[in-house]
Amino acid sequence: MTEPSSTLLHYEDFPVGEVAEFGAYKVTREEILEFATEYDPLPFHTDEEAAFASMAGGLIASGWHVCSMQMRMIYDGLLYNAASMGSFGLESVSWKKPVRPGDVLSCRRTTLSKRVSKSKPAMGIIEVRWEIFNQDGELKSITEGSQLMVVRNPVQGAAQ
Amino acid sequence: MTEPSSTLLHYEDFPVGEVAEFGAYKVTREEILEFATEYDPLPFHTDEEAAFASMAGGLIASGWHVCSMQMRMIYDGLLYNAASMGSFGLESVSWKKPVRPGDVLSCRRTTLSKRVSKSKPAMGIIEVRWEIFNQDGELKSITEGSQLMVVRNPVQGAAQ
Repeated sequence: MTEPSSTLLHYEDFPVGEVAEFGAYKVTREEILEFATEYDPLPFHTDEEAAFASMAGGLIASGWHVCSMQMRMIYDGLLYNAASMGSFGLESVSWKKPVRPGDVLSCRRTTLSKRVSKSKPAMGIIEVRWEIFNQDGELKSITEGSQLMVVRNPVQGAAQ
Repeated sequence: MTEPSSTLLHYEDFPVGEVAEFGAYKVTREEILEFATEYDPLPFHTDEEAAFASMAGGLIASGWHVCSMQMRMIYDGLLYNAASMGSFGLESVSWKKPVRPGDVLSCRRTTLSKRVSKSKPAMGIIEVRWEIFNQDGELKSITEGSQLMVVRNPVQGAAQ
C-alpha cells in the first residue's frame, strides 16, 4: 500500500553535501526583451542600440529574469517531483556575469545544511546554493536560500 | 548649458536615511497564473483548486514574481529617471506573507549606506532596503541589496 505522494522527494531525500546538476535553458533575445519590457525596462535590457553603447556592451537579461529562469530549471529538474512547501527567502543573490542571448544556462544545486522546523515537525528547512553556468562553464550567478520540504516521517517531540 | 543626462538622478541624489514610497501595482489572478506557468509552476501558483487545498489556502504569487513586480515599481517610481548602472546582487530576500489576487502593492525604499567604488570613481554603490506592502499595510516582503549609480562629479583619487 504505497500512497502516490510517497514517490515524491521529501526532506529526507536531500543529504547535506549533495551536488546535483540539471537544466539546459536557451536564452533568447525575444525572451529577454519580453521579460524586461514587463518588469525591468532599463535600456540595457530592452534597447539593443542603447545596450551596445552602455557598459553592458550588448543586450543583457534582467537579473530578476535570470532568477526566474533558474526557478524554471529548479522546477523542471527537481521540484516537479518533490513535496515542496516553498521558501522563506534568500540569503544572498550575486549576479556575477551578464546573461546574453544565445547563452544556454544550467544549474548546479548544493545542499548546504538542513533542519526540521521547531514549531512544525512536518516541515523541513533545507539551505541550498544554486549556481548558474552557461555552455562555456562561465559562472553567471550564485544564489543561496531556503527550500521547505515536507518531512516524510515526522517525529513528534523530536524536532530540533 | 545643461546636458540632458544631468536631469537624471545620480549617486549624489540619494542621501543615507532617505525613505521614499511609490507604486500601486494591482495583482491579478491572470498575471499570477501567467508568470508561474512560465517560471514557477508549483501547484499553489498555478492551480486554484490545489492552492485552496494547500497550506497557502488559495492562489499565491511566486516569490520571484513578487520580486519582479517590485522591480517594475522601482523602475516606474525611480529608475526611469536615474543614471542606473544595475546591481551586483542582493543581501537578502524575505518573503513574509503571500501575495494574492486583488492585492495592490506599494514599495518603500530606504537608503541604508553608500560609497564610491574604489576601482571605478564614476560608479557609486548604494545599499538599499525595499519593503513591499499591500493596500492594508500588510508587509509582504523585505529585500536588501545594492544599486549602482553614476557619480555626477567623480573626484579623481578621492574614491574611498
